[in-house]
Amino acid sequence: MENEVRISLRDIEGMSKIPRLTLVNALSGFKSANLIGTVSEEGVNNLAIFSSVVHLGSNPPFFGFITRPTVVPRHTYSNIKSTGQFTINHIHSGITQQAHQTSAKYDHGISEFETCGFTPVFKEGIKAPFVKESRIQMGLSYVEEYEIKANGTLMIVGKLEELFLPDQVIQEDGYLDLSLLNTVCIGGLESYYKVEQIARYGYARV
Amino acid sequence: MENEVRISLRDIEGMSKIPRLTLVNALSGFKSANLIGTVSEEGVNNLAIFSSVVHLGSNPPFFGFITRPTVVPRHTYSNIKSTGQFTINHIHSGITQQAHQTSAKYDHGISEFETCGFTPVFKEGIKAPFVKESRIQMGLSYVEEYEIKANGTLMIVGKLEELFLPDQVIQEDGYLDLSLLNTVCIGGLESYYKVEQIARYGYARV
Repeated sequence: MENEVRISLRDIEGMSKIPRLTLVNALSGFKSANLIGTVSEEGVNNLAIFSSVVHLGSNPPFFGFITRPTVVPRHTYSNIKSTGQFTINHIHSGITQQAHQTSAKYDHGISEFETCGFTPVFKEGIKAPFVKESRIQMGLSYVEEYEIKANGTLMIVGKLEELFLPDQVIQEDGYLDLSLLNTVCIGGLESYYKVEQIARYGYARV
Repeated sequence: MENEVRISLRDIEGMSKIPRLTLVNALSGFKSANLIGTVSEEGVNNLAIFSSVVHLGSNPPFFGFITRPTVVPRHTYSNIKSTGQFTINHIHSGITQQAHQTSAKYDHGISEFETCGFTPVFKEGIKAPFVKESRIQMGLSYVEEYEIKANGTLMIVGKLEELFLPDQVIQEDGYLDLSLLNTVCIGGLESYYKVEQIARYGYARV
């Protein structure tokens, strides 16, 4: 590698907070870009951006995401705990600015839908609001959670109950080429990227 | 949404295995593309592609990834358990085909480095091999693991000990624009995407 730099744990520990957050958040690679919708017991719709949604299993379909109950977006967690449901809504290139704005620390009584310019939609069987502006919308039920003891973060596990998407994105073999919907991905804490397919390989054999 | 299709849990449960895997794996959004390097107690270097690496914290720098100990890439897990270390190496557009090939079920005695065309590199303080062809290379120590009871998958948590990267990618504020290194992301099980930055926003305020 040309001009290789070595950065050790001690160097990272010695950095000030913002540069350290900026650097370390970029190191896992590109991240999924999703809005998680919930509703409070008082009926306030909540919406928050997450870059940590991961696939955990297909049968049944399980997804996870990482959060800290004590920091923003803490309302997402408390609403999921009280209602048992949440939605995951994909972010496309036309809504990145509004989506990013949901990461601001709004009070519990404020709906990020209204403040950030999104439209809540309710669908049968799911108490939490979907994002009308999203092209892939998933309704999930809470399954379980794990506290990562190393630093107190939580992984929330949900089961997909209802999926809504435009029929033209579903390919014959079941694949969804999300680039056709202009779905974006996230770099670090605040950068948004459009994507373009360069290769699709088959199942790899020895 | 035009031509909206609704797919319920029951529909997904009723699908056959391959289309279900194909569909559900695409639903979390774009995924990080990394090669995880390990070495067995017998000294065989192992390399496997993972699309589930996530950022768990910055201080200290923790990363996680999802695996199933009973399926490929099971050698990654057993090697991490026996040596306590592993490497995470970013995949760029020039090495996607070889990287994808590491997902084939090679025997424990076969090194995917050799078979798939990668060069193992050892660096001070880390027992596991780095991937010379990767432009961002991370050496981690095993911290802990969590079994997701819902389906028996594991989340492995590691702490970043050593980071190697080209100096020109580090921006003044600490950000790494991975698109400058042609780092790719993954869609579903087998699609690779190049990315292009469309926006970078600041810290969102109310």
